[in-house]
Amino acid sequence: MRVLGIDPGLTRCGIGVVERNGSALKLVDCGVIRTDTDSLLQDRLLQLEEELEKWIERCKPDAIAVERVFSQLNVKTAMATGQAAGVALLIAARSNLPLALHTPTEVKAAVSGSGRADKKQVAKMVVKILRLDAAPSPVDTTDALALAICHHWRGPGSARLRNVAATERKRIATLRGRKNYR
Amino acid sequence: MRVLGIDPGLTRCGIGVVERNGSALKLVDCGVIRTDTDSLLQDRLLQLEEELEKWIERCKPDAIAVERVFSQLNVKTAMATGQAAGVALLIAARSNLPLALHTPTEVKAAVSGSGRADKKQVAKMVVKILRLDAAPSPVDTTDALALAICHHWRGPGSARLRNVAATERKRIATLRGRKNYR
Repeated sequence: MRVLGIDPGLTRCGIGVVERNGSALKLVDCGVIRTDTDSLLQDRLLQLEEELEKWIERCKPDAIAVERVFSQLNVKTAMATGQAAGVALLIAARSNLPLALHTPTEVKAAVSGSGRADKKQVAKMVVKILRLDAAPSPVDTTDALALAICHHWRGPGSARLRNVAATERKRIATLRGRKNYR
Repeated sequence: MRVLGIDPGLTRCGIGVVERNGSALKLVDCGVIRTDTDSLLQDRLLQLEEELEKWIERCKPDAIAVERVFSQLNVKTAMATGQAAGVALLIAARSNLPLALHTPTEVKAAVSGSGRADKKQVAKMVVKILRLDAAPSPVDTTDALALAICHHWRGPGSARLRNVAATERKRIATLRGRKNYR
């Protein structure tokens, strides 16, 4: 089974492809999609779409994992990340491949044992798990590889459960006549 | 000339089509694309894509205007809006139609004369400008119609200028060796 991990971003979108044979995980490929910051927003999204499609075509994954982005400090960056994530999710949906979203905390916890691990710790664990000689290059791919590893180990189970839970919470909230639910 | 205005949103995406003949503006069509909040995020984005494509095919606009979303109070909503905006921009880019982004302040200022006008004032002006009998229904379309009106009156000029200015600021910042520029 081969998982394509996508760490969405407009300036740099990390890609990591990890295969599982038995219990061993193996690096298949990784890289970064960059779009020109001088280009128009719509052209950058179009470029991201094209490059993501090429990755899916080339790597033939069995599943796609996308990082679930919630918030970022910089509001302007958050919007760009949201737009890039929208394109990534759309392409994943269009590919008809199983798709799961994992939060950064889930990814960190899966690879390092702690949901509060920093980037260096995550990179170290990715090197160890995939038995690499050095940290993957470019460095932006580390998060995407960690995401793919997380998906192999956790599976889409947690995401599915979360969806069921959210639907249930919503149903209850509606029954209670409340407009805002969490 | 016919402009399709898109007010991006995942739960409700406002659509407003306005035509200009000479100096008169005329409502062509308006509506809202809704996606099921119980569906998976990726399926909602896919649904939004399909519906937006249908609108473009049916209304045959000469240009598309999308609201440039910067920030929102609710971080979770901001991400969903960003994702919806990403899909809207992607489809607009793919259509090869001229595309412009206008900020909410620009839209409000264009239709009401004040960048700080509230929703009611904007709706009132949309009714007046398009010589409608009542506020357009559903009410979510008002912003999209205001956006299309704004595009007719302002044109893509401001957006173009902004791009030029941003590129120039960036070039200067790079020359100065600064990493962060605004």
